[in-house]
Amino acid sequence: MGTRKGNLMSVRADIKVLDCTIRDGGLCNNFDFTDDFVRELYKTNIKSGVDYMEFGYKASKTLFNESDYGKWKFCNEEDLRAIVGDNISDMKIAVMADVGRCDFRTDFLPKSESVIDMVRVACYIHQIPAAIEMIEYFHELGYETTCNIMAISQANSNQVEEALTMLSTSSVDVIYLVDSYGSLYPENAAALAKTYLSIAEPAGKKVGFHGHNNQNLAFANTVETMSYGISYLDATAQGMGRGAGNCAMELLLGFLKNPKYSLYSLLIFIEKYMIPLKESGVVWGYDLQYLFTGQLNRHPREAISFTENNRKDYCEFYKELLDND
Amino acid sequence: MGTRKGNLMSVRADIKVLDCTIRDGGLCNNFDFTDDFVRELYKTNIKSGVDYMEFGYKASKTLFNESDYGKWKFCNEEDLRAIVGDNISDMKIAVMADVGRCDFRTDFLPKSESVIDMVRVACYIHQIPAAIEMIEYFHELGYETTCNIMAISQANSNQVEEALTMLSTSSVDVIYLVDSYGSLYPENAAALAKTYLSIAEPAGKKVGFHGHNNQNLAFANTVETMSYGISYLDATAQGMGRGAGNCAMELLLGFLKNPKYSLYSLLIFIEKYMIPLKESGVVWGYDLQYLFTGQLNRHPREAISFTENNRKDYCEFYKELLDND
Repeated sequence: MGTRKGNLMSVRADIKVLDCTIRDGGLCNNFDFTDDFVRELYKTNIKSGVDYMEFGYKASKTLFNESDYGKWKFCNEEDLRAIVGDNISDMKIAVMADVGRCDFRTDFLPKSESVIDMVRVACYIHQIPAAIEMIEYFHELGYETTCNIMAISQANSNQVEEALTMLSTSSVDVIYLVDSYGSLYPENAAALAKTYLSIAEPAGKKVGFHGHNNQNLAFANTVETMSYGISYLDATAQGMGRGAGNCAMELLLGFLKNPKYSLYSLLIFIEKYMIPLKESGVVWGYDLQYLFTGQLNRHPREAISFTENNRKDYCEFYKELLDND
Repeated sequence: MGTRKGNLMSVRADIKVLDCTIRDGGLCNNFDFTDDFVRELYKTNIKSGVDYMEFGYKASKTLFNESDYGKWKFCNEEDLRAIVGDNISDMKIAVMADVGRCDFRTDFLPKSESVIDMVRVACYIHQIPAAIEMIEYFHELGYETTCNIMAISQANSNQVEEALTMLSTSSVDVIYLVDSYGSLYPENAAALAKTYLSIAEPAGKKVGFHGHNNQNLAFANTVETMSYGISYLDATAQGMGRGAGNCAMELLLGFLKNPKYSLYSLLIFIEKYMIPLKESGVVWGYDLQYLFTGQLNRHPREAISFTENNRKDYCEFYKELLDND
């Protein structure tokens, strides 16, 4: 533990790349993607060698009105199948289930009847018991599971170790380090990665990383944590994701040495779909307001609202943040 | 050697921050900054605690016609003094002199007659002997000197060690690791930093880092190399610099723990000067074409020309690059 795994010339066969463009990117456009967009991304990910594609959330239809959102907030089985058929590819299908915002006992089929392969359970650190209940349920249904502990930059180390210990005795397959606020510097991210691995690996669990780009560090933190043994890596086309966005898939695929990963297929998709999407007015990516919330280790909600209101008074906004810190 | 210096909570009193907005940013607008812009940046840097401000090049007037460029390609003493007077501040003034593109024996006053404090000699690794000749000349005139070895990602390790050994016995004060192509990953950058420090530190030299943002790693590589002991850190307002640009000063100042550095003064400058500059059509910053040349470890000239021609056919451009690799 604590030493680097492999080097910059070697192939790490344990690496799994997960595309979450529709899920995290859906937070930028209310999940309003055309079927054509999602289908082409699905085909692109297969050609690019991506290992998992996350299609969206399984959000509660009690809490959220289906007509208020695009379909990928709910990921109905028939909507998934309209894109992937029986998914005869080697790429696996993932969906996300938020603790407290998912009717998990009613909205999931047994794995044998679903094209979904993996359910990613997202929670804050104090929700670990609730997350584990869901994980055990999904595991019983036959799914691969992950636990994505969000906003880890605000948790204290005792909490982190306790959460990891609890997850180690659960049925979860992968534990994710999630830098929701884009606050971690590579040295922090590496230290957390080592903690995660030191507890998860002996228990036979894999560890993943999901970054945000508030300080232009999503890619750097991904490769840094990977170098210590993290193996599940989240990325999105052009970094599309909430606020400052995520690790860009094109950066990650260009970095990975395994020849199964192909950058060129993704470039075709970016040119044909992502650039027009940005030009149509969907907004994400690194900007000063996100840098501020990242540096201050805060939820990006105020920065998102600054962006939505087309504000450009960065200094005023910065003072507002300090004022209610 | 090889261990980290300080930690994320500590102040490193040896750190020197160098703003090279006018010099590297000048490559984006032909050095065509208004005096008002340069004067406000000068005042901003002083308020922000920046240690050095680089005003531009001392380019040869034999090779380059003064009327073809803004004045900061030449940095005449009277033009500098029109901005800084006698520079009564604590911030030092730097200029850059390129090997082979500078009439160094005619264009420099003795330090006692100039407001310039530091001359940064930029060269490729095969030009080290010529660089050392210039360094000794500037040292004799009374200036602090640096040697900025460009395009280090294309040099082999024997060359690097030989260059560092030669510089160690010269009068140079600071040796810069320069990732001209934005090709280095944090692990590469850290390994090079350790090599630089292992040879330079015992000889009493400081080491600096100058990054480019082709792979969104300029800031990450800056803090990574700093963590191993590099102490001279280049950055520019909003990352303004050739092609994909440099490490953004606002990221760096937000990271540094020394209370002498102030982010807020810089934000005022960015809002008032940098954002209008971008809106006026001056182009720099991370984009796919720079990612390609960074990944391929190549000079960004083709990507710059792709940008200047307003091309959007990224896939075609990528194939062109592979075709003449």
